[in-house]
Amino acid sequence: MIDYKLHIPGPVNVSEETYHAMCTPVMGHRSTDFVDLYQSCQPNLQKLFQTKDPVFLSTSSAWGVMEGALRNLCRKKVLCCMCGAFSDKWIDVAKRAGLQADPLQVEWGQHIDPDDLKTQLASGDYDVVTLVHNETSCGMMNPLKEIMDVLREFPDVISIIDTVSSFSVVPIPKDDWGIDVILTGSQKALAMPPGLALFTVSARAFQRAEQTEGRGYYFDFLEFRSNHAKGMTPSTPVIPLIHALNYTLNKIFSEGVENRHQRHSRLNQLVHKWAEGHGFELLPQQQFASKSLTCLKNNLHIDLAGFVKTLRESKKIAIDGGYGKIKGKTFRVSNMGDETDKSIGHLLSSMDEVLEQFLPA
Amino acid sequence: MIDYKLHIPGPVNVSEETYHAMCTPVMGHRSTDFVDLYQSCQPNLQKLFQTKDPVFLSTSSAWGVMEGALRNLCRKKVLCCMCGAFSDKWIDVAKRAGLQADPLQVEWGQHIDPDDLKTQLASGDYDVVTLVHNETSCGMMNPLKEIMDVLREFPDVISIIDTVSSFSVVPIPKDDWGIDVILTGSQKALAMPPGLALFTVSARAFQRAEQTEGRGYYFDFLEFRSNHAKGMTPSTPVIPLIHALNYTLNKIFSEGVENRHQRHSRLNQLVHKWAEGHGFELLPQQQFASKSLTCLKNNLHIDLAGFVKTLRESKKIAIDGGYGKIKGKTFRVSNMGDETDKSIGHLLSSMDEVLEQFLPA
Repeated sequence: MIDYKLHIPGPVNVSEETYHAMCTPVMGHRSTDFVDLYQSCQPNLQKLFQTKDPVFLSTSSAWGVMEGALRNLCRKKVLCCMCGAFSDKWIDVAKRAGLQADPLQVEWGQHIDPDDLKTQLASGDYDVVTLVHNETSCGMMNPLKEIMDVLREFPDVISIIDTVSSFSVVPIPKDDWGIDVILTGSQKALAMPPGLALFTVSARAFQRAEQTEGRGYYFDFLEFRSNHAKGMTPSTPVIPLIHALNYTLNKIFSEGVENRHQRHSRLNQLVHKWAEGHGFELLPQQQFASKSLTCLKNNLHIDLAGFVKTLRESKKIAIDGGYGKIKGKTFRVSNMGDETDKSIGHLLSSMDEVLEQFLPA
Repeated sequence: MIDYKLHIPGPVNVSEETYHAMCTPVMGHRSTDFVDLYQSCQPNLQKLFQTKDPVFLSTSSAWGVMEGALRNLCRKKVLCCMCGAFSDKWIDVAKRAGLQADPLQVEWGQHIDPDDLKTQLASGDYDVVTLVHNETSCGMMNPLKEIMDVLREFPDVISIIDTVSSFSVVPIPKDDWGIDVILTGSQKALAMPPGLALFTVSARAFQRAEQTEGRGYYFDFLEFRSNHAKGMTPSTPVIPLIHALNYTLNKIFSEGVENRHQRHSRLNQLVHKWAEGHGFELLPQQQFASKSLTCLKNNLHIDLAGFVKTLRESKKIAIDGGYGKIKGKTFRVSNMGDETDKSIGHLLSSMDEVLEQFLPA
């Protein structure tokens, strides 16, 4: 049993109210009671995804949908925009699914340049692009609007955008920007436990899927669509997380989406100011820094593992000591979910106190 | 919010203690706290699966693993044993995954005959066989021991056995019988909410997977194996259900597995006796009747939809009015999970009272 609060970049802290909602009794997933639950989530989901397209619920992590989307949509070749651990991995997943894939690679912490994307797409080789909007491993948020401006110039290219750690943190006007597929997960800014992925698919992406062989069953977009029409999911869904989702959506709209975005932005700035005050540098350039989490370089050369461990043990707060090849060289602090000025204030003052022990005397 | 108790054949009723376990706080899935949770489940899982092979946890419904297993293991052609809604569907899933597949089809409610299987396998055409041990749609349990006796004669044929609604109800000695892959789900006899699939893979099935292209990522058996070695899952797992699993396993071994099997058998017999007393006939032959649920023909020609509805509304008990093409012609009553002599007694006396209104005067 853990006795510390999560400020790692997912899973984040889950409220007691969310756990309580998860314990609403399960029902048969082909019953009218399930249809009621599913359909009561849908209008709020569409508002939150800023789309008229249906929003689907997948019992999986986001990776399932990231792989499934490629099997549904790629007939020629996928261009994978790569700028961190998760976007780098996507090209590997594409190849394992037997697909042709090329990289558009930048250094971890750098953003994808819309002009580079345009140049590579001009080859005409690609029918799908994958992009991780917010690279959680680097705390870097790609310039999605400018990237979508480029993608709209290529009407045969389908866009699959991973918004796992940016969804509900910043506005992502799906329909206005012409995004084809947006996918996200339950355990980041939505502040639910992991186990549920959410995604939405444009009409032209459905047209592509209709012509694609080997989509399989579990992640078949057309199965999701036909079951959605009945208020159901293709396979037995993770009902407790759908109860939690219903609760979470109501909470989000009771706060107001704009207020939610502003709160995340404000709390993120508090972490930035803390970093600046101590002389820690951001990994990404300031203008591409994530609003969901802060990824800081260990430019003060502190014993990072010791700092993270002491914070967890003495202050009961978990932050992250870096991911993959930048583990130990960076650390990450999440402000996603239900955080408040007070809770982030407590986090930062706790970090202050512990940091003192790790700075040169 | 539902106000009735589930006696449908899954999801079944979930206890308050299980919900409570689900609310144990989530942790990072790459943390030592998660590794502790994962590894504390493993010995009990291996005992319950009667295997020395690792037992994997998939954040999906069983269908994900049913499709994934085929992508991992079929290089030539799969023979799908078909005897009800779920086993019939498996061949369709195989074809959608781009695989060659043939049916070994019997009528719904009939069992798969080991001799027929032997004849078809003797062609040498197949490298994988799929079998649903307990066809939930028909309440029919296949003679798995005799089927495995046949399969062991074909060392190049890998067996994938769906035990979704028989797992932990009857003994299935995986290693002794030489089963390659067993898979099950959380929401049947394990009496947890849906969202977690469990499966185990033999050494020779791993050898096959190592040689198979296009396994993908999300259900790649080799990914499960390499992460298992670290006490982790390939992708972010549905942590609340793993907490619930840990609780459930301890409860199962505190009752004793043999006692659990006997309890399911005894409670199942109570339902059979109730049926006999009213003149309802079993859909399957008596010797192939499931121990998990009872599927009865509507040979008394009652208003089945009315009976099911009245039972739910007046007695707050949900049973099932038939699945797929036998909806309305059959009804199903589950005795899976945490049921007791007392709870099944209450179910049957409630059914007695309601049935009176539906019998001819």
